[in-house]
Amino acid sequence: MLVFSSAQLVNLSTNLLMAAGATREEAEIVSRYLVNANLAGVDSHGILRLTEYVDGIRRGFIKPGGKFAVLNETNSTALVDGHWGFGQVICRRAMQLAIRKAERNGVSAVGIVNCNHIGRLSEYSTMALEHGMVCFIAVNADPGVAPYGGKRAILSTSPMSYAIPAGEEGPIVVDFATSAVAEGKVRAALSKGQRIPEGWIVNSAGRSSTDPAELYEPPLPPKQIKLSGALLPAGGHKGYSLALVVEALAGALTGNGCDGEVKSGFANGVFIFVVKIENFTPLDSFKSHIDRMIRAVKSSPRAEGFTEILIPGEPERREETKRSKAGIPIPESSWESILNTCKEYGLDGISLVKP
Amino acid sequence: MLVFSSAQLVNLSTNLLMAAGATREEAEIVSRYLVNANLAGVDSHGILRLTEYVDGIRRGFIKPGGKFAVLNETNSTALVDGHWGFGQVICRRAMQLAIRKAERNGVSAVGIVNCNHIGRLSEYSTMALEHGMVCFIAVNADPGVAPYGGKRAILSTSPMSYAIPAGEEGPIVVDFATSAVAEGKVRAALSKGQRIPEGWIVNSAGRSSTDPAELYEPPLPPKQIKLSGALLPAGGHKGYSLALVVEALAGALTGNGCDGEVKSGFANGVFIFVVKIENFTPLDSFKSHIDRMIRAVKSSPRAEGFTEILIPGEPERREETKRSKAGIPIPESSWESILNTCKEYGLDGISLVKP
Repeated sequence: MLVFSSAQLVNLSTNLLMAAGATREEAEIVSRYLVNANLAGVDSHGILRLTEYVDGIRRGFIKPGGKFAVLNETNSTALVDGHWGFGQVICRRAMQLAIRKAERNGVSAVGIVNCNHIGRLSEYSTMALEHGMVCFIAVNADPGVAPYGGKRAILSTSPMSYAIPAGEEGPIVVDFATSAVAEGKVRAALSKGQRIPEGWIVNSAGRSSTDPAELYEPPLPPKQIKLSGALLPAGGHKGYSLALVVEALAGALTGNGCDGEVKSGFANGVFIFVVKIENFTPLDSFKSHIDRMIRAVKSSPRAEGFTEILIPGEPERREETKRSKAGIPIPESSWESILNTCKEYGLDGISLVKP
Repeated sequence: MLVFSSAQLVNLSTNLLMAAGATREEAEIVSRYLVNANLAGVDSHGILRLTEYVDGIRRGFIKPGGKFAVLNETNSTALVDGHWGFGQVICRRAMQLAIRKAERNGVSAVGIVNCNHIGRLSEYSTMALEHGMVCFIAVNADPGVAPYGGKRAILSTSPMSYAIPAGEEGPIVVDFATSAVAEGKVRAALSKGQRIPEGWIVNSAGRSSTDPAELYEPPLPPKQIKLSGALLPAGGHKGYSLALVVEALAGALTGNGCDGEVKSGFANGVFIFVVKIENFTPLDSFKSHIDRMIRAVKSSPRAEGFTEILIPGEPERREETKRSKAGIPIPESSWESILNTCKEYGLDGISLVKP
């Protein structure tokens, strides 16, 4: 395991993305967001995506310089066409648009189509916090999850994030997949030769399985990632219901598709909803309600086996504090593949992370 | 078990509520919604609530004729003060307001405060379907659910409903509590002397329990309903996270409170969000996406132990078709208590259900 500072990784990533064709602005935004995910401990959405994005540019899925265009617009709604630019760049601008609209109209809804992987959702939902707004964002993508009672992957992991401002306490930042688990965790267990818990996946025979290999068609990852089984929805019919809602809002409403027809693993349909708190109740009053709720929850007696009650967003903030000081650990294999990709573009990766 | 038609029950309920002080309009709306819940098979939100509502009027929680007043308003938002009128009457008008605002502005958000129990959420969310809108509605109430890792009831069961229009297929109608189960189901198991599944409740010692009695302080229900343990959130941290979001939107944003301070079991804070589909994509295109998704899901191969894959809302629609013909079953004990309440108001319940 190697350890780098966030500045080192941002520098490396920015240079590599620019070499692969991104503008400086694009490269800086994408790199910052990837490294932010690492800082928060969400390594699945971190710098390991870099080689995937470079590959996406090469294969024509990601089009650097992709224009941000508004297709339909009212005072409080917009549908954005990302023209297959970097998801992070498009989604950041769409969030800014949603915030401007909510500032003027109290509430807004913005959809995005023709957009690549936007990464960690809470990067966007938390943008609304300083404006005194509550934000909901949801994403659909290619299928990986079986419907409740099914065994074929038809729904996407349909993640969603909510950000809710607090006063003196930290904000509530929810960010989860509506599937029992992200596919990356099954792949991680496979690579370590571990079993997975009951309830994560169903195999091609329609049986719940604790063998991570049963999710995939041979040749197994990392050779290829093709599902033969499916991930299961979180909490049975409740996660399944939420996945259908996300598919409808982020897939059908935007035109990204929601019927197992989303073609590329890079394509994200996005739905954003923002509400300005002051239009309902004074912001201070809202924040003190949230502070009191957080304190009531955190100081309440614990169930057997728990040493602490955490608020959504708290574990990530702690990890951020830790990694900001101690650095970001990167597995040797990821590092190797980043260095190789650098080499293909005539870059010396090692010199790009010189302190 | 007695069996009545919906017309019989609506007539009985309307007369009883009017005798207890409701206007005819209020009595008709509340009675229709209660019986609709019975028709859909959701008996916990059906006619058995009638004696509870009459009791609420007597104790001054429910104020018949409670004025519907808009406290804050923009083109696309409103905060409604229900003045403690019937929740059903207030929420119906608030939904109509939300639909009008979304019709003009593409999206709307409406909150309600000082509002009594509104009943089954999908009654309201489905109002938006015929207008070509997607609706989200969520409610907070008095505490019953422990935070993830906790053992004290601090959060409400925080139910939410989504309604999504389809084309030739039936609409997707999601309606669930973010707790593992509704308190009514634990009470039902207690009254039948049954155990409950692991994961529903935590007892006062903070241990998961399969004994429904361990949720309550003695004297046990129906003598009183006071919790010593707590319901558990659905799917661990995911249901817990959603409950915090519902508390924030329906409790903090409206002013109903969200920190275990909601005083009366009747008080519901309500948050409604409506988005008009045509502002994003042609309605027909949206509906055919949803139709294709529904068909893909329903025709997909089934997991072991399942004979069918259902869409949220489908089981309720089937029950409705069945009970519309066969009638609504009412347990003897509920019937007795309704007849007794009728008697207190000089009404002959039996004659009110004469065919």
